[in-house]
Amino acid sequence: MTPGVSIRLSEIASHLQAQLIGDPDCLIHRIASLIEAKPGDLGFLSHERYRHQLTDFRGSAVLVSPRHQGWAPEGVHQVLVEDVYLAYAKLTQLWRRHQSPSAGPKIHPSAVVHPSAWVDEDVHIGPLCVIEAGARIGSGSRLMAHVCVGEGVAIGQRAVLHPGVVLGADGFGFALNQGQWEKIEQLGQVILGDDVELGANTCVDRAALGDTVLETGVKIDNLVQIGHNVRIGAHSALAGCVGIAGSARIGARCQIGGGAIVLGHLQIVDDVHISAASVVTRSILKAGQYTGLFPLDDNVAWEKNAASLRQLHRLRDRIKALEAHLKKAIQ
Amino acid sequence: MTPGVSIRLSEIASHLQAQLIGDPDCLIHRIASLIEAKPGDLGFLSHERYRHQLTDFRGSAVLVSPRHQGWAPEGVHQVLVEDVYLAYAKLTQLWRRHQSPSAGPKIHPSAVVHPSAWVDEDVHIGPLCVIEAGARIGSGSRLMAHVCVGEGVAIGQRAVLHPGVVLGADGFGFALNQGQWEKIEQLGQVILGDDVELGANTCVDRAALGDTVLETGVKIDNLVQIGHNVRIGAHSALAGCVGIAGSARIGARCQIGGGAIVLGHLQIVDDVHISAASVVTRSILKAGQYTGLFPLDDNVAWEKNAASLRQLHRLRDRIKALEAHLKKAIQ
Amino acid sequence: MTPGVSIRLSEIASHLQAQLIGDPDCLIHRIASLIEAKPGDLGFLSHERYRHQLTDFRGSAVLVSPRHQGWAPEGVHQVLVEDVYLAYAKLTQLWRRHQSPSAGPKIHPSAVVHPSAWVDEDVHIGPLCVIEAGARIGSGSRLMAHVCVGEGVAIGQRAVLHPGVVLGADGFGFALNQGQWEKIEQLGQVILGDDVELGANTCVDRAALGDTVLETGVKIDNLVQIGHNVRIGAHSALAGCVGIAGSARIGARCQIGGGAIVLGHLQIVDDVHISAASVVTRSILKAGQYTGLFPLDDNVAWEKNAASLRQLHRLRDRIKALEAHLKKAIQ
Repeated sequence: MTPGVSIRLSEIASHLQAQLIGDPDCLIHRIASLIEAKPGDLGFLSHERYRHQLTDFRGSAVLVSPRHQGWAPEGVHQVLVEDVYLAYAKLTQLWRRHQSPSAGPKIHPSAVVHPSAWVDEDVHIGPLCVIEAGARIGSGSRLMAHVCVGEGVAIGQRAVLHPGVVLGADGFGFALNQGQWEKIEQLGQVILGDDVELGANTCVDRAALGDTVLETGVKIDNLVQIGHNVRIGAHSALAGCVGIAGSARIGARCQIGGGAIVLGHLQIVDDVHISAASVVTRSILKAGQYTGLFPLDDNVAWEKNAASLRQLHRLRDRIKALEAHLKKAIQ
Repeated sequence: MTPGVSIRLSEIASHLQAQLIGDPDCLIHRIASLIEAKPGDLGFLSHERYRHQLTDFRGSAVLVSPRHQGWAPEGVHQVLVEDVYLAYAKLTQLWRRHQSPSAGPKIHPSAVVHPSAWVDEDVHIGPLCVIEAGARIGSGSRLMAHVCVGEGVAIGQRAVLHPGVVLGADGFGFALNQGQWEKIEQLGQVILGDDVELGANTCVDRAALGDTVLETGVKIDNLVQIGHNVRIGAHSALAGCVGIAGSARIGARCQIGGGAIVLGHLQIVDDVHISAASVVTRSILKAGQYTGLFPLDDNVAWEKNAASLRQLHRLRDRIKALEAHLKKAIQ
Repeated sequence: MTPGVSIRLSEIASHLQAQLIGDPDCLIHRIASLIEAKPGDLGFLSHERYRHQLTDFRGSAVLVSPRHQGWAPEGVHQVLVEDVYLAYAKLTQLWRRHQSPSAGPKIHPSAVVHPSAWVDEDVHIGPLCVIEAGARIGSGSRLMAHVCVGEGVAIGQRAVLHPGVVLGADGFGFALNQGQWEKIEQLGQVILGDDVELGANTCVDRAALGDTVLETGVKIDNLVQIGHNVRIGAHSALAGCVGIAGSARIGARCQIGGGAIVLGHLQIVDDVHISAASVVTRSILKAGQYTGLFPLDDNVAWEKNAASLRQLHRLRDRIKALEAHLKKAIQ
């Protein structure tokens, strides 16, 4: 963390519209976890199960729920908030603003921005970005280093694009022509709603025809692949290493765990949670949590079970035969 | 899609060497799916199962097979072609040429090209590419932004390399030396045949010794990892997020679904299809379709089955015991 | 391989502190596998199972263990070393030095290095790298093209960072605020020990608070995702396409196979090996080899077994019922 940040507790409480029990002039330098906090730090109790970590808390102040007001050791200033984790999120934003008061040049001179691209006044474009012809970037967006925005791609307001993001590369489309692949030129677009964040080296492909769409508030982690003509609903979140194949349609407020794969042309309705590393092979038309992964085991046990698994269909037949025999024997 | 493209139906029919039923002077502005087409658009019926979408078709013209000539609504011009999907692919190429008549500077001034690299006259090198010493790039190849071609890498004709592709980074090779890793310098090369296309942020590693080879017509999607000394046969296609470990040898005309993993030193013969997210743990010596993934289920059902799965070997033993008991009882 | 390297066998033996049986003045141009070696090449017998490849060996010299001294064909010079594979690794390093005597400019003029970054004298920074404010890079480190080192990231000595590596992008952290995601600014750091190597397009995220740490000698392949606040112990090795979710703690000397996923907040102790494509869903507190992947099968067999698998819990109940019946029948 950059040294030099000092924020009065009164400013913190005011930023959170929170009640402060303690010294409003106490200076806070850092946000820290309960167990790592030192004098000058502010910690936060995001769940009751961490209560024991308050015992040895060495920081100066703590974010707590009014329900847990009595738990902090004596002498620790308390900032009372209903949703501690959300308050912690908002404080990190306050810290960021104090740390980086000026973001430097708006468009880094090393970026390559096509003259026909439309970039709003309040956009930050990092070093060595490439913005191709006709691209549009909404106000308040921040593009880190090495981001590539392809021809005609449209980005909403307040996007955050981490290094190496590629928007608008060709979707993967070919037609067979006597045993060889004939390229289907990808003539469509990529459209990002407002408040979309994309992790490092994540790729969103251009549609074959029409648009690939990430709606408002979609958050995507690093190294994620979004195929052509995919549509992802508002406020859905995808963890790292996920792959969404072409033309899949994912609803709003979905959560997809790291390394999961969604096959092409499927539909997933709103409020579906996919566990990490699971493979979605059919449409999901009902909200809920879905899982499909082979449970980890020590290698010896796995080998035995994996061998049996390949016999599973025959085991089923043997059970059926046993049941028939037993039925006959009983008669 | 860039506005302003207008192509006469007669040119379309001539490009496809197809019969036209309708007005040769009708101007087409866009290719569109059957359900999204508007006046001025051309749609295509790539499969009989979409016939019902023709009923409300609002476009001006349609690509259809001569067998389905009667299916288009009255007033819709028809372009008759035997293989509609292939004709659609070829039309997208015509559109691309009309949209981008000039590709701009051949080598973007921001690209860093080593003086000893050999770049054919007709090659397009995008902004901020890096072409290292001794690399060779064949005629007609197009490198998008941020592509990195390592020292001595050889690329055939008409390659398409999307943003962030890395060719010729070191393969992952180390020898243990008293509990620490000693680097095996990767002294080999990467060789790409003609007509290879690689998706955004895909990596093809340099061989330890010898060559990593992608043969003619290999097509690879985004975020794919190709390890050192891998060889992939002509016209094979790999979908996004695939990983091919070192020294694997994959035949011609193979198809590997998204997120699949192929372990190292394996051989896969020609015409093998691997389902998405499957893990290839042994060589495949017979053409066909292969699969290995845990079927998705709602989380509660998955948990029950996963728990039973870890007992599978014992279940098998219990069935065996039951069979023995029953046999004894019958005797 | 770059032509023009010629190294005397005496220099090779001396570099390896090895006994030479044969002509010390014989010139070696290339290291090659036993089956690809030609006159002027040096091969190596890394395992007894390759003995038959020595029969037709056409190279000039071979690395062998003293135990296998008699196996080489007549006229082939022998360099005797206890650990052939390790000696091969060290020879590749000798070759690399002969091939690339000068690495060119230390900091490529196209790189964007913030004036407040601290770069040791002996560091190589490749074309179009971005080094942000306050970053620190230890002596002897080599950054290839397009590497991005975020604000304040600290890199130890002799790091090797392949093209497209991203260090210090934001971790994936958000708090729910009335159905929308509130960003948790990532205020922590990334710290790399000495001798860390990271593959192409691999990402290591900045900690939320505190540090994401890769200890001394960690080696990571291409397209790997390391989440925020992860800690990886010394000399652990991760193959391509691996994903490590936030706050996971991995011990020393671990090996994680390609495509494996480790869920967040888990602990893995020292000397654990995770098989490729396995998913770690719980902490591993005992050294050993762990696996969890669905065995590959031809698609028809897989479909049958996958269908049975979804009935597995019921099969278990049916076995239990059979056992109860049988017990009753026997009584």
